[in-house]
Amino acid sequence: MTEHIHETAPTQYVEANGIRFAYRRFGKAGSVPIVFNQHFQGTLDHWDPAVTNGLARTREVILFNNAGVASSSGETPSTFQEMGANAIAFIRALGLSEVDILGFSIGGMISQEIAVQAPELVRKLILVGTGLRGADMSTSQSSSIFGRTYEPAEHLWLKVHFTPSEASQAAGLAFLERKLRRQDRDPLVGQQTIDAQLAAIGEYLAYREVDGYLDYLKTIRQPTLVVQGSNDVIIPTYNSFVLQQTLPNAQLILYPDSNHGSFYQYPELFVAEATLFLGS
Amino acid sequence: MTEHIHETAPTQYVEANGIRFAYRRFGKAGSVPIVFNQHFQGTLDHWDPAVTNGLARTREVILFNNAGVASSSGETPSTFQEMGANAIAFIRALGLSEVDILGFSIGGMISQEIAVQAPELVRKLILVGTGLRGADMSTSQSSSIFGRTYEPAEHLWLKVHFTPSEASQAAGLAFLERKLRRQDRDPLVGQQTIDAQLAAIGEYLAYREVDGYLDYLKTIRQPTLVVQGSNDVIIPTYNSFVLQQTLPNAQLILYPDSNHGSFYQYPELFVAEATLFLGS
Repeated sequence: MTEHIHETAPTQYVEANGIRFAYRRFGKAGSVPIVFNQHFQGTLDHWDPAVTNGLARTREVILFNNAGVASSSGETPSTFQEMGANAIAFIRALGLSEVDILGFSIGGMISQEIAVQAPELVRKLILVGTGLRGADMSTSQSSSIFGRTYEPAEHLWLKVHFTPSEASQAAGLAFLERKLRRQDRDPLVGQQTIDAQLAAIGEYLAYREVDGYLDYLKTIRQPTLVVQGSNDVIIPTYNSFVLQQTLPNAQLILYPDSNHGSFYQYPELFVAEATLFLGS
Repeated sequence: MTEHIHETAPTQYVEANGIRFAYRRFGKAGSVPIVFNQHFQGTLDHWDPAVTNGLARTREVILFNNAGVASSSGETPSTFQEMGANAIAFIRALGLSEVDILGFSIGGMISQEIAVQAPELVRKLILVGTGLRGADMSTSQSSSIFGRTYEPAEHLWLKVHFTPSEASQAAGLAFLERKLRRQDRDPLVGQQTIDAQLAAIGEYLAYREVDGYLDYLKTIRQPTLVVQGSNDVIIPTYNSFVLQQTLPNAQLILYPDSNHGSFYQYPELFVAEATLFLGS
């Protein structure tokens, strides 16, 4: 049997909820697998191989496209609750009864909904660069950053994931090089997915008007690692402080001079700290 | 040569600034040593051996009493700036030209003043359960906790360093057991030290009224690891978020269900994370 890595793991498919989910699975078998939940507009090919391969040294890594996203079939629903339900159906369709969950950005919001809906399925949670129901987005620059065009288009991610500092931009270019190494690539997401993800974000932020909108976090009792950059211009960093202060069992790590993609700026450090957290 | 550990390292003395500083030094020679700066009322014997011995596996650890504290001679000054100057004199008297600095609680404030006054001396900083000039202490329960008596007296530290949860209190009892293992012990601090430390705290908090009171943090360019418990009742946790957001190069770690002594509650995790930080 070949030991696959991020760059070589074949795209596989599994059916659940009437959706044909595309996924890739690689790493060290025999442990609790970790299921990655992707950010806005992201596909199987938007993860950093330094992170996925790094974690795959000690556990199985499962990347997947949620319903309607890129090479998965179906429609993307317009709430994170429904996306969470689809993720649960996908995980169960793989025959798994216990997983760790990593969620990045809106993937972190979906991860929280997975934990709320299927607590027995989730051993530990890693939430990177994310927010919460009713997150404070008042200082987010998301609309203006995603609303512009970039040449080459991939440089959007230098703006989203990295700070303007020389060190962070250099880390960004290294990330793009790693990310583009894989040859057979997932298609980009379609407009239906983008519109549905934006609708879901809008619905999630509206929780701020609801009394006790943070209460659901108290029901997420899994050990949780919350990770964010010092200066996240997509989801303001303060939200991770609120997550840590409200979740019953959360560790917070904020990295210096970093933006939305903090764990892509310090992949070795993140992998070491996440491995400590998952192993403890 | 005997390989000393926390429990066996002899108390040694060195003279500087007219003060005879008591210190203990142990661990793996040849690396940049780490100098520990102690909390309010603390002595050589208030550190957790699980932390000191843990870090000593990969580097030299130096514990010391600042001027006037316990077995060190002299008067305790009434500002953290003067305590920082004394610490610098102590470090230089050992013939050291580069050290890492760990500071806990008011020791973290002294550590910042060391970095401000002698930036060339400090390679990296670890600030645990601490604040900053002008810290927001509005929710601190410090006065009421230190103002009561405990039976046995050592149980003060269960209240200061640990949360009321069963898990945290159990970790607290384990900490006290470790802390009391060493036989030949430092004397307790005298009233002059307590009064001077309280005066220094008052002077430090008064910075809040000064315009630009956070500006000094921008001059501390050393890589810094900021660590605190989720619910610090001595120095409110939010101050560590402000430290991380203001220091130019700081990583923040907040531990779950933990109080002022978070690193004594999770000593293995702290040692692993601090070793990663110091080694990177």
